[in-house]
Amino acid sequence: MNKENKPLIFITNDDGYNSKGISVLIKLMKQLGDVVVVAPKTEMSGKSHSITVNSPLRLKPIEHSEGFELYALDGTPVDCVKMAFNRILKTRKCDLVVSGINHGSNASINTIYSGTMAAVFEGCAERVPSVGFSLDTPDKNADFSYCEKYIISICKDILANSLAEGICLNVNFPLGQIKGTKVCHQAKAYWNEELVEYKDPMFQPFYWLSGVYNCLDNSPEADFRALEQGYASIVPMQVDFTAYSELNKMRERFENVEER
Amino acid sequence: MNKENKPLIFITNDDGYNSKGISVLIKLMKQLGDVVVVAPKTEMSGKSHSITVNSPLRLKPIEHSEGFELYALDGTPVDCVKMAFNRILKTRKCDLVVSGINHGSNASINTIYSGTMAAVFEGCAERVPSVGFSLDTPDKNADFSYCEKYIISICKDILANSLAEGICLNVNFPLGQIKGTKVCHQAKAYWNEELVEYKDPMFQPFYWLSGVYNCLDNSPEADFRALEQGYASIVPMQVDFTAYSELNKMRERFENVEER
Repeated sequence: MNKENKPLIFITNDDGYNSKGISVLIKLMKQLGDVVVVAPKTEMSGKSHSITVNSPLRLKPIEHSEGFELYALDGTPVDCVKMAFNRILKTRKCDLVVSGINHGSNASINTIYSGTMAAVFEGCAERVPSVGFSLDTPDKNADFSYCEKYIISICKDILANSLAEGICLNVNFPLGQIKGTKVCHQAKAYWNEELVEYKDPMFQPFYWLSGVYNCLDNSPEADFRALEQGYASIVPMQVDFTAYSELNKMRERFENVEER
Repeated sequence: MNKENKPLIFITNDDGYNSKGISVLIKLMKQLGDVVVVAPKTEMSGKSHSITVNSPLRLKPIEHSEGFELYALDGTPVDCVKMAFNRILKTRKCDLVVSGINHGSNASINTIYSGTMAAVFEGCAERVPSVGFSLDTPDKNADFSYCEKYIISICKDILANSLAEGICLNVNFPLGQIKGTKVCHQAKAYWNEELVEYKDPMFQPFYWLSGVYNCLDNSPEADFRALEQGYASIVPMQVDFTAYSELNKMRERFENVEER
């Protein structure tokens, strides 16, 4: 096998290196290139773009069948990307970062909490074409088979045509049969949080975070709505969070305020 | 004091409830309204938008001089926002979320790692005008005095004129004298990570995350450059990460790929 002629694909997730979703992704990506996996040792859902700066990280090579490199890291998904780029891939150029397949939707406002998508943003900031895949169910034994042909198509396209610098993709699949793909925007929504109160055995209160999803967006091009209708949603996203449409208005309001 | 006539200002940060930066912010915001503070019990730098879903949270009222409510939470900055909105402010409408003053710059790509800015995005997603303030030094005893008049001006303006839905502000101050304010975009940049390798007493390797900042953006309107030149940078940001400029191109590439 001539490694130089095959694309190098880096895989991570936030559900952990031994989740079903990542094993499906590894199987698919081995069809397209050389695969290196660094994924969290334990579940890291909801860790967003957090990085581990106040404690050490341990990297463990995992023995497995063959045909790709697999490591577990006791850190976050973004730590995994950084570890891979700095210590494992080193000078070898990475052609594609793929994250997932997440057990649970990362459409809409979920993007911002997602460790899976954070790894995608990190790859994108490092100027590597990056894509995240998620399936709209938390079921640990979910059936990912309907997603497979879409994942192959999308990754083949990115390997052939790349993505613009600073742009990455957030792809979400509905459960079961898929009607097709829709390019969407991130649905406007928020989680109406609920901190459930308990009492410990010493009668002291503690809380557990829960919430109810509120979609404020009825556009058929909102990713959440496309999923509801049985389509896979594909949202191009950017690591530049600037609201460019607001710049001029903001200049009038906020530049040189102290001189007024 | 008629609480109904004063705006309600919620404050949090990622450096912890007893950091110098948040104490300056509390002092300033008390001039503008009723202040409620829920901030992390310990430092939460680099925690980004992470939420605590797999463990309980403890909320501790902190005794202090007077004139505002102060709580410490053993969670992330986003947990603090959620706890405040669900358990402390409850039905009382919050007029402004203010986060900081962070000990360290949150300009450029730092936004994405920042717990301070995550709290701002969370407030924004919950449709409350939200702003984050950061000073470009990690010094725990930094002199925040030069920032004060800018913070008052900006918050007064937001309380009077609000911000568009889905838009929040990321304000960064240079150290020392400030030449004025510049409305900027997020500078294109990335951290060139370095996982420093150590050996533990059993000769097993461990790693510690470090990195070198790389700015790819020489525009005078990049926030990092404004800071370098001694200006406070003000970047309007959005919680919608969709790259709208890419939608049409992406439709041609990715819609109905399987039928081709």
